[in-house]
Amino acid sequence: MSDVARRAGVSTATVSRALRGMPGVSAETRERIAKIADELAYVVSPEASRLAGGATRRVAVVVPAISRWFYATMLAGIEAVLREADLDVLIYHVEGASDRERFFDRLPARRKVDAVILIALPVTDPQRRRLDLMGVTVVVAGGKIADYPNVQIDDEQAARQAAGHLIAVGHRRIGLITTSDSEDQVWTSEVLRKGGYEDALRRAGIPLSPELMVTVRWGLDGGARGMDQLLSLPNPPTAVFAHSDEVAMGALRTLRRASLAVPDRMSIVGIDDHPMADLNDLTTVHQSVEVQGAIAGQLVLDLVSGRTPRRMHVTVPTYLVVRGSTAAPAVSLTSQAPPAAEAAQAAGSKK
Amino acid sequence: MSDVARRAGVSTATVSRALRGMPGVSAETRERIAKIADELAYVVSPEASRLAGGATRRVAVVVPAISRWFYATMLAGIEAVLREADLDVLIYHVEGASDRERFFDRLPARRKVDAVILIALPVTDPQRRRLDLMGVTVVVAGGKIADYPNVQIDDEQAARQAAGHLIAVGHRRIGLITTSDSEDQVWTSEVLRKGGYEDALRRAGIPLSPELMVTVRWGLDGGARGMDQLLSLPNPPTAVFAHSDEVAMGALRTLRRASLAVPDRMSIVGIDDHPMADLNDLTTVHQSVEVQGAIAGQLVLDLVSGRTPRRMHVTVPTYLVVRGSTAAPAVSLTSQAPPAAEAAQAAGSKK
Repeated sequence: MSDVARRAGVSTATVSRALRGMPGVSAETRERIAKIADELAYVVSPEASRLAGGATRRVAVVVPAISRWFYATMLAGIEAVLREADLDVLIYHVEGASDRERFFDRLPARRKVDAVILIALPVTDPQRRRLDLMGVTVVVAGGKIADYPNVQIDDEQAARQAAGHLIAVGHRRIGLITTSDSEDQVWTSEVLRKGGYEDALRRAGIPLSPELMVTVRWGLDGGARGMDQLLSLPNPPTAVFAHSDEVAMGALRTLRRASLAVPDRMSIVGIDDHPMADLNDLTTVHQSVEVQGAIAGQLVLDLVSGRTPRRMHVTVPTYLVVRGSTAAPAVSLTSQAPPAAEAAQAAGSKK
Repeated sequence: MSDVARRAGVSTATVSRALRGMPGVSAETRERIAKIADELAYVVSPEASRLAGGATRRVAVVVPAISRWFYATMLAGIEAVLREADLDVLIYHVEGASDRERFFDRLPARRKVDAVILIALPVTDPQRRRLDLMGVTVVVAGGKIADYPNVQIDDEQAARQAAGHLIAVGHRRIGLITTSDSEDQVWTSEVLRKGGYEDALRRAGIPLSPELMVTVRWGLDGGARGMDQLLSLPNPPTAVFAHSDEVAMGALRTLRRASLAVPDRMSIVGIDDHPMADLNDLTTVHQSVEVQGAIAGQLVLDLVSGRTPRRMHVTVPTYLVVRGSTAAPAVSLTSQAPPAAEAAQAAGSKK
């Protein structure tokens, strides 16, 4: 409402009176305010104006893919904290760019909630401005958007932990399977994790090889395709860092089908510590997703109650979990022909 | 409200007037109605009474474990349909028996929603009666509770498909890993799937062996423990049907750790076709969870719009997906000593 007031050059009280059809506002002003409010898609709801301070006792959670482990677990963490405080949780599933566009265009959550939690998803500047117009608390979970209070892991650091482990056990030829979404949009975590991988290699004096970095669709199938690509190189890597555990597990499937023993012929590491990572004996970098959700919920509780959170921006630590999918490369570092290279050469010579 | 009216022996209009403090109701009647309404935990909300026909345009989804694949996927299916119709989705995470008790005791969703979707969870008769008092549409997804409109698979049939496949490829000594929740409460799907397994064996003339049926906590770890138990039998099974894919994958972990080759030494089959089933080459019975969610959402849309759904009770078909975890037992059916039995005997003779 303050936005409408600012644009119309009147007080918010005047805007409120005008939009609710109360007396004391000239016809001209009323019309001007209605026009601006309309431009801003600002619709006064009887419910919202009835409840002081916007205390709808509801929080909207905007999530890009409910059925994926990361988002579902984050949602569980958020819900637990908000439910405990007797707040209701509305979910908005906003899957692709057009869903996002429609969501931010119509902002269906406006007038219905005290706060919005965005679970890490790409938000454009115009979308962010529309969100600000809602005038509700916004918190970001599992990532960072503008300056909104947020909770996240340090994605770059997590990637350094993963790639650093491969370097520490002796690998020099290290592949990267990074991802993009189904609309080829690159997400912040993808940029940061790639950066962490590159940084770890640079610090170890290992030159970056663009052919060792492949970009695939997120998920098991993407991971499998990524490993296909890396294995088809004349000189494949001896180890691979995958964007996340689900991508890493897809890569493991390719290795199993190719009968390439893990970790003897190929080491592989992911990020997440997905519930299935242990099952698949996958070395990974653990992140506590439910904890991030709970912290996001707590940030909302503090902010809607007028309390100042102890920290507006929380980074949850990650740590390496070594399992059976990583080991030293089969031959010593000084050798110029690691087994994967030999295999590739053998395969090449058959042509 | 009709419940209050019935108990008080007055019309619903009178109840409505009495509870909202409107004139035309005697003090005595007013007091009696208030007392009954209080007993029934029926609280009139200004919002609910303002909106004709309870059109809050919100639907509550009550879910026992948000972060599990089955529930998250069901939720995704429900949300997609309701969002399309511009209805908001409130989620209530109700994990254990005490959560359920508290939820049904307080019914936080009352006065806030037009409909409630219960994703398969145990509901007692008193809880069901409280739910009925809410006077909103109730739909059950992924199971059956009382006579509420519902969508589900035929759990017994799915289990027959799974166990029947093991019988068809030649197994006679077939284990069952069934589950109970962390409070040892048995869910309907567990009873039905166990029944389907027993039925498949009986039809094939295979006597039921109680020692081959183990009950574990649901999940990967439970599945691993279940296989531990079956492998410690003097005469272990040659094949195992697990309650669900996550349980089956836990059992696979035990087999891998014990270096027992699948399917050569042990066949295993689950139910779900979980996204990770293909990765783990697990034979399973496919169920379409997102479709069940979408159908539950459609049932709600029809019912809150006053339309009669084409079917009030929908059963979504399941089908067998054969992968690499099942095969004929290593020796012919006529032999009295399958390899697992031999191994067990060998192990026994070492004592």
